[in-house]
Amino acid sequence: MRDKLYVIKIGGNIIDNEKNLSSFLKDFAAVEAKKILVHGGGKLATKLAAQLGVEQQLIDGRRITDTETLKIVTMVYAGYINKNIVAQLQSHNCNAIGLCGADGNLIQSHKRQHPTIDYGLVGDVDAVNAELLKSLLEQNINVVIAPVTHNKKGVLLNTNADTIAQEIAQAMSEFYEVDLIYSFEKAGVLMNAEDDSTVIDSITRSSYKKLKEQKIIHSGMIPKLDNAFVALLKGVNTVLIGKAEQLEDLIAGKTGTSIIHE
Amino acid sequence: MRDKLYVIKIGGNIIDNEKNLSSFLKDFAAVEAKKILVHGGGKLATKLAAQLGVEQQLIDGRRITDTETLKIVTMVYAGYINKNIVAQLQSHNCNAIGLCGADGNLIQSHKRQHPTIDYGLVGDVDAVNAELLKSLLEQNINVVIAPVTHNKKGVLLNTNADTIAQEIAQAMSEFYEVDLIYSFEKAGVLMNAEDDSTVIDSITRSSYKKLKEQKIIHSGMIPKLDNAFVALLKGVNTVLIGKAEQLEDLIAGKTGTSIIHE
Repeated sequence: MRDKLYVIKIGGNIIDNEKNLSSFLKDFAAVEAKKILVHGGGKLATKLAAQLGVEQQLIDGRRITDTETLKIVTMVYAGYINKNIVAQLQSHNCNAIGLCGADGNLIQSHKRQHPTIDYGLVGDVDAVNAELLKSLLEQNINVVIAPVTHNKKGVLLNTNADTIAQEIAQAMSEFYEVDLIYSFEKAGVLMNAEDDSTVIDSITRSSYKKLKEQKIIHSGMIPKLDNAFVALLKGVNTVLIGKAEQLEDLIAGKTGTSIIHE
Repeated sequence: MRDKLYVIKIGGNIIDNEKNLSSFLKDFAAVEAKKILVHGGGKLATKLAAQLGVEQQLIDGRRITDTETLKIVTMVYAGYINKNIVAQLQSHNCNAIGLCGADGNLIQSHKRQHPTIDYGLVGDVDAVNAELLKSLLEQNINVVIAPVTHNKKGVLLNTNADTIAQEIAQAMSEFYEVDLIYSFEKAGVLMNAEDDSTVIDSITRSSYKKLKEQKIIHSGMIPKLDNAFVALLKGVNTVLIGKAEQLEDLIAGKTGTSIIHE
């Protein structure tokens, strides 16, 4: 039997709250298995951009990344957030290493091509260096990944953290039984976005289609679920979506929403 | 015979100049041996602090690091500079990984204790995880180190990059024949600080003493040379000080100043 690997994404709302992040990291450190943490950037990058007078433009929830914004993203995601997470994990005796996609050629990408929108310095993933991750995990080093990739030509690129989690999970399925976990501030995919008691236990391809038609699932949840179904198609064992505060129960499948490949 | 390892520190003046840095990294990538790059932060952190209205205080050339300054240092050193160096090295097919001292518990430190000055969040090194560096180097991954360490209690600490280079070089002497190279904008230790043609070829303990008495060596060069002599005492093979622009000649001992353990 293959070893279990958890690829866990934490959402921006957790990162923005020092107490929630600290509590999450304690729970993460306690997970007794190989694990990879993928983090976003939350509002810190937006806040720093405002302080520095760098105007931010979003299209469909995706940041348009000009040179100054990339600089901020690299500082905040790959610097401040990544290193603080690693330092906190070390304090819980959870050995961790923080990487961005340029490190060890971990995630190679290309600048997004789009017929009408120039997203700027945004990267779409080409390849994951799964061997490097395996080597670190086999040395009992947990990996913390910041959503910054590179094009192997010296250019860093801003990349969606949900997508990175999915790509990492897929690539690591070659070596491990991978559970991909999207954890955030809500209890799962909800029938009513404002009510944590309306968690949908499981979503299949056909129920997903219906939920979209009924507009119960919309906006930011759609790319997350699209990612989830692709991951299952490409060898990931389980995809779970749920509350970061309930990590132990979430990875045990006791809470949150399971995405089912059928 | 043991493998050669170069531990190369680059000074802030190289980092501040995009063209010089780029040229240096091309030369660094071309060095055909195992190598570790330790970088400082240059004026970028100071500039960002000014933009954000965070006042900077220096005592004896050492930054007093309050919480806001540490945040800036972590963003600039471990984020922006570190990841840009790594991305550029990758573009030269030089596989590299960028780490700070918290990553993989690479450099554990404690908050500096001083009878009269509170340096703030400044760390003095306790231990280097030489095994981790060895494991990466043996996988042909070069390591790029940002001068931020941690106390294993969740706190990041600002640490002098010259000292980090020295500590890394010493620790790695257990496994490799280590040459420690301090490279910066000048041609070496100079008789006349303004004249690159006045390089002192070699400095021994006794000549160092005289040069200090004659005030030829003073201020920032003193801790660098003190570090160098300690490194030689603790197993480092060679210490060289010289021009980053002449890296190939410098590591070959054809230029710059050799520090001699006698």
